[in-house]
Amino acid sequence: MLLIPPNHLNPRAELGVALRALIARAEQALADALPPEDQAPVDLHRAMRYAALGGGKRLRPLLTYAAGHALGYEGAELDAPACAVELIHAYSLVHDDLPAMDDDAMRRGRPTCHIVFGEAMAILAGDALQALAFEILARGNTARGMAMLATLGHACGAEGMAGGQALDLTATGRSLSLRELEHMHACKTGALIRAAVRLGALTAHADTPALQVLDEYAAAVGLAFQVRDDILDVEGASDVIGKTAGKDAAAGKPTFPSVIGLDASRARLAELTEAALDAIAPFGERGAWLEELAHFAAHRVR
Amino acid sequence: MLLIPPNHLNPRAELGVALRALIARAEQALADALPPEDQAPVDLHRAMRYAALGGGKRLRPLLTYAAGHALGYEGAELDAPACAVELIHAYSLVHDDLPAMDDDAMRRGRPTCHIVFGEAMAILAGDALQALAFEILARGNTARGMAMLATLGHACGAEGMAGGQALDLTATGRSLSLRELEHMHACKTGALIRAAVRLGALTAHADTPALQVLDEYAAAVGLAFQVRDDILDVEGASDVIGKTAGKDAAAGKPTFPSVIGLDASRARLAELTEAALDAIAPFGERGAWLEELAHFAAHRVR
Repeated sequence: MLLIPPNHLNPRAELGVALRALIARAEQALADALPPEDQAPVDLHRAMRYAALGGGKRLRPLLTYAAGHALGYEGAELDAPACAVELIHAYSLVHDDLPAMDDDAMRRGRPTCHIVFGEAMAILAGDALQALAFEILARGNTARGMAMLATLGHACGAEGMAGGQALDLTATGRSLSLRELEHMHACKTGALIRAAVRLGALTAHADTPALQVLDEYAAAVGLAFQVRDDILDVEGASDVIGKTAGKDAAAGKPTFPSVIGLDASRARLAELTEAALDAIAPFGERGAWLEELAHFAAHRVR
Repeated sequence: MLLIPPNHLNPRAELGVALRALIARAEQALADALPPEDQAPVDLHRAMRYAALGGGKRLRPLLTYAAGHALGYEGAELDAPACAVELIHAYSLVHDDLPAMDDDAMRRGRPTCHIVFGEAMAILAGDALQALAFEILARGNTARGMAMLATLGHACGAEGMAGGQALDLTATGRSLSLRELEHMHACKTGALIRAAVRLGALTAHADTPALQVLDEYAAAVGLAFQVRDDILDVEGASDVIGKTAGKDAAAGKPTFPSVIGLDASRARLAELTEAALDAIAPFGERGAWLEELAHFAAHRVR
């Protein structure tokens, strides 16, 4: 039987106590995994830590922990995959913000990595963060480690995140169909979000039906997250979202509001959230964290 | 008993038939592993293939095959690690050549990746090549796969290649001691060359003493390769070496000739080559490919 926790009826834009504690856990694991600032090459290490430890929603590690929880596992073996997905996310932001890419000077309310450390060091920091993600996962040495590494590699590469970025580059200034837009986001942000859930599930020894259900959930949440991002780009204030509002639209990037309008974007967001919640219904109460994260993805204000 | 093949006495600047056949094998494996050009995102796939399939010495995959051969293994399981190290090498060249880094317009006698595909696509192609390297290695699924992935991750990261690049950035315009220069190269190019040998050895089920001997060999060959690179930067002609000669010196980068002079650089190169050959003496005739590669690293003209 599926219990309906209060936040299903009253969706919240902020996370509850349990998930906030998991953010602290993920941040501690990240701080431990990153190379120390007092060790050469100091500039590189500082740039890596600046990029990975400077706040952020930590949605991806939370999804890893929440997927484990849904399957009854909360142990220390989740820390390596939780770190790995966040390191990949951090590297992707550093490279996305570069002058040759989105040319963004602000991120999470602070100057971006290349503004602080220079462009060359930012490129290297991103490269080293990606390598560290794979190294950490490989050192985790869990039973399904090879499957986890293959999952992460695939999610980052030409058929995942980097491929989505490339589609995004070529889409700028063009008009896309809703289908094309959703495919781009399924690669660009969706692939890593799906990997975050899958790595948690693999760590928790999920069987194939559970992996499938969780993948449906993750695909819906990943897309919902992006629809919300596009809505915030229209509605949000720069000082709240921590980056330049209205930037995507100004850059001629196709967004959900530009392709289907703001009302239809809101409707699509509700539809995706429902799909995510439906997918995890079989987990009952153990799916509460996943449920909270689905609401957070859809209702967050930054 | 150690047999002394002819090329020990007559060091050659070109590779023999067996190693040239292995280049073809590595290039076929790379062509198969890279995403096809007729599949979206086309630009990204084209940039990746341009970067990875445009010639090159293929030293790293050859070292992987040669390390396997020294241990009596030449099977198909070597293809994944051979590809992986070459993909990492290819990605590092794409990023090194970027305007914010070395700003190089020519590589292997052709325009560099960002000249052909633009800077943003070159950054993404490098990122995706790195991810593909890990994915391919993870799909190889050999017994020592996790150790291989950890080795590769470490070699690429802040304590390896990316760290060496960062040291290189901060060293430009400064004077370094020989020790500092060698440490920088041990990270920048040495780490991946050592990983190439180690991955071959792990695939061939090397025991700890063999891994250690091969690591000594690889450390010496890696450094020798770099000393030769610096000598070629002074002596070589751009049309032979395929990139701009004299560029490192002009950029104020410390090189072996600038730190210890050209004669001492040649002496160091001979010393390193001897160290490499001494290390692999126990392999006897099975070490012939490694021996040939040590000579090649030291005597190549491009």
